[in-house]
Amino acid sequence: MSQDNTEPSAPPAPPVNLVAAANLAVRRVAIDTWRENVVYLHRDCDVYRAEGFQALSKVAVHANGQHILATVNVVDDPAIVGCQELGLSEDAFAQLGVQDGHTASVSQAEPPASMAALFRKIDGERLDRDDFHAIVRDIAQHHYSKIELTAFVVATNRGELDREEVYFLTEAMVASGRKLDWREPLVVDKHCIGGIPGNRTSMLVVPIVAAHGMLCPKTSSRAITSPAGTADTMEVLANVELPFAQLEEIVRDHRGCLAWGGTADLSPADDVLISVERPLSIDSPGQMVASILSKKIAAGSTHLVLDIPIGPTAKVRSMPEAQRLRRLFEYVAQRMRLSLDVVITDGRQPIGNGIGPVLEARDVMRVLECDPRAPIDLRQKSLRLAGRLIESDPDVRGGDGFAIARDILDSGRALTRMNDIIQAQGARPFDHNHPELGALSFEVRASGAGVVAGIDNFQIARVARLAGAPKVKGAGVDLFRKLGDSVAAGDLLYRVHASYPADLEFARQASARSTGYTIGRANEVPHVFVEF
Amino acid sequence: MSQDNTEPSAPPAPPVNLVAAANLAVRRVAIDTWRENVVYLHRDCDVYRAEGFQALSKVAVHANGQHILATVNVVDDPAIVGCQELGLSEDAFAQLGVQDGHTASVSQAEPPASMAALFRKIDGERLDRDDFHAIVRDIAQHHYSKIELTAFVVATNRGELDREEVYFLTEAMVASGRKLDWREPLVVDKHCIGGIPGNRTSMLVVPIVAAHGMLCPKTSSRAITSPAGTADTMEVLANVELPFAQLEEIVRDHRGCLAWGGTADLSPADDVLISVERPLSIDSPGQMVASILSKKIAAGSTHLVLDIPIGPTAKVRSMPEAQRLRRLFEYVAQRMRLSLDVVITDGRQPIGNGIGPVLEARDVMRVLECDPRAPIDLRQKSLRLAGRLIESDPDVRGGDGFAIARDILDSGRALTRMNDIIQAQGARPFDHNHPELGALSFEVRASGAGVVAGIDNFQIARVARLAGAPKVKGAGVDLFRKLGDSVAAGDLLYRVHASYPADLEFARQASARSTGYTIGRANEVPHVFVEF
Repeated sequence: MSQDNTEPSAPPAPPVNLVAAANLAVRRVAIDTWRENVVYLHRDCDVYRAEGFQALSKVAVHANGQHILATVNVVDDPAIVGCQELGLSEDAFAQLGVQDGHTASVSQAEPPASMAALFRKIDGERLDRDDFHAIVRDIAQHHYSKIELTAFVVATNRGELDREEVYFLTEAMVASGRKLDWREPLVVDKHCIGGIPGNRTSMLVVPIVAAHGMLCPKTSSRAITSPAGTADTMEVLANVELPFAQLEEIVRDHRGCLAWGGTADLSPADDVLISVERPLSIDSPGQMVASILSKKIAAGSTHLVLDIPIGPTAKVRSMPEAQRLRRLFEYVAQRMRLSLDVVITDGRQPIGNGIGPVLEARDVMRVLECDPRAPIDLRQKSLRLAGRLIESDPDVRGGDGFAIARDILDSGRALTRMNDIIQAQGARPFDHNHPELGALSFEVRASGAGVVAGIDNFQIARVARLAGAPKVKGAGVDLFRKLGDSVAAGDLLYRVHASYPADLEFARQASARSTGYTIGRANEVPHVFVEF
Repeated sequence: MSQDNTEPSAPPAPPVNLVAAANLAVRRVAIDTWRENVVYLHRDCDVYRAEGFQALSKVAVHANGQHILATVNVVDDPAIVGCQELGLSEDAFAQLGVQDGHTASVSQAEPPASMAALFRKIDGERLDRDDFHAIVRDIAQHHYSKIELTAFVVATNRGELDREEVYFLTEAMVASGRKLDWREPLVVDKHCIGGIPGNRTSMLVVPIVAAHGMLCPKTSSRAITSPAGTADTMEVLANVELPFAQLEEIVRDHRGCLAWGGTADLSPADDVLISVERPLSIDSPGQMVASILSKKIAAGSTHLVLDIPIGPTAKVRSMPEAQRLRRLFEYVAQRMRLSLDVVITDGRQPIGNGIGPVLEARDVMRVLECDPRAPIDLRQKSLRLAGRLIESDPDVRGGDGFAIARDILDSGRALTRMNDIIQAQGARPFDHNHPELGALSFEVRASGAGVVAGIDNFQIARVARLAGAPKVKGAGVDLFRKLGDSVAAGDLLYRVHASYPADLEFARQASARSTGYTIGRANEVPHVFVEF
């Protein structure tokens, strides 16, 4: 909208490089601005006055042959930043990498080189390979403001990217960071598009396929919007924040690892984009495909099994939608020379019993120990996914993978391998018979008799989040009934664990509004027809 | 893109109101974050730790029965904010309106009520009236983060809004702020969609129609991306920042004013949206219509003449495009019961000679004084626009407006009225025979002989901006040749004025890259077939 009634619009790119010569002393301002570089300039700073920098305009900070881009905040308090100083937020300070007091100069930033391409995408045009590379490079180098990042994310949402563009985006995201090369012909991984609480199959698939001898250097994420990520859950058992050199050694020794991928600089543009996608709950097919495949390819994977769960409260609600998504994944994977095996799975309800890091670690360890209390659905799904990965071994016949995976699990070899990996990463004390759950709890019980005809993945996840998961490791939801189970009035449906009274209260209010369970008749249980 | 591999997405709206009881002492942090409220919490602050607020998550700050929403920045320096304190950026502090040290509590904010509607728009759905009212209310109350604002702007860009939605948006923007009621049947205004440097017709139309007796309470904008807005230019002659009560009195006494609208709280959501639209150079038809009409209707206008210039470097490049825009303006105006007269005008080149506040004020005063040096095009265009407005007077016959306007101008009555308005607003010393131009200058001359076959509005505006306009009042570009003029090699095309050596150098570099002038043959001058 234009308030600017009778004048031409700003030039999108200034024609000259507006470098200011003045030198200021760098000062670290201990403010964490969350991935947006901010430079604090005093209002009476000569540079600010002379060059007419406006609040929010972007500047380049030059020091020691380096430069970073940042947004200007204007300061009126010399205790925060003085007239001769140039304040930098934590991130900006770390990126510039000079000492406090080092001289630096500031200039009006050239807009990122890819701005013209961004504007074309906002206008609805198709972009080519070079455009995506330029945009993603600028994003990875933190040259985009939050406004520009958001514009890119919204302008490439929904059907705005054709499959060729998704391929260009994926390729550009891989190119924006480091790419691991394990120097082996077969590097396997599995991934799920998300949306199903408790779905901790990676912690079973990795030790199984590693015990089979396959290289599976699994880097995982922490939860962003969910009650637990694989990294959060693994962290209950072992250290997950490892320097890359150590990670590499563990993988060489044990054929697998379960670590956090945030430190390895793989597809760094993805991490920047997530900071915008998260608050907008944007997760469009094109962006999902580029995000997932770029991380896997950058991690050096050659073979990937991808899990797409479908169900009434899963991310994907129908088989036609799942098939469309599968084809997009397959197209891009093929262009990127990644061998991809997509499996469409039952996403009608959470997998396993526990939702939250400690509860999920308990379920995983019970499956590995072949404990009779182990959740059958988690075991079965993990065996099937591991079986599919094992079949990418040229020595294994199609159809034999499941049995091989089961033998590895039932013989205890998967447990041994898991314990080796845990020891190598740095074990933490954990006893799955006595998991350290949040000391506070409440129970949700059936109000009437019938059959469990629905479990809302979103609502169960929400209750677990409010109870404190994943930040509070022992917080979460422990499910006692699954789809199709008969219940009598008063039967326990789930127990919620928390460590803080406020968290417990928030979770209680949420589950009072909706338990997430539907009790009905047996014929009301929804069906999905999937491979497994 | 999802890094969040196997878990459900965050609930978009938490089910409970997460109010933290703890009291903190408000502390004004003298940082200007440019329209985004920021709250600074120390990392060791109990509230932050217990409630698990994450950097960038949104919180509500409660004090004295009021509350504001803000983004969290985490601070590690007690000199900026201590563990028992709650730091507020300048804007946030002003909005909350309590004293330093006042107790306040902070809670996890309920997401803005309109978030679900925003997500639906991002998904490409059509929104209804209630949706737009909810979104615009949240925007006007600063409940949206920059990320959410950008998502709204990009998701309603281009053809994303149908004309009914543009009407809903306009209506909601009017409803979001104050609406003036002048208690007269006829309140007139004129507006231009922008894009043409030097197009200062408002400063001529207002005194002419006011002298005719029509009520014309013109609130104007400052330049956002252009070398001068009407408010910037008027400020050369008079004070433009007036309290509303004084403005009202001036309008009652003189039937018109030329003041800055930023203080009157008219369509406040528009001002917030501009903070995002500007850096993205977004100016889509729907947003333009809602922005312009909402401001006019909120200001109490009943009759509006709207100027849509077309030309090769104007905002609108062709007649069919101008006609589509005209129909959209007319549809919304009719739904809002605003009488609208759209005129499509010649936008092939700048209007008048001067570009920049002092230079434009000089041109305007020369027209009012009927000085022979007055630019003919500015005079003619202003008379035609004034004539159209005068014809909304039921006592004036269609076709008579232009002659009436000319009589008012040539008789000196417009000058008298302008001087009355200047005196009433608070005159500033100005002599149009000796305007205070920037002391530094350079000249741009024709490199060969021929006819001026093109003047690039964008490039001329860019040179004027780089020279310092509008911040430096005396900076800008003074044109000596217009379209169709014959030139010999070495003839003066324009002179650039600046006050600072750096500005002069930037402008010189820009015009060295491209003067903005095309010298060619007479038959190369582009034609547009417009009313005037």
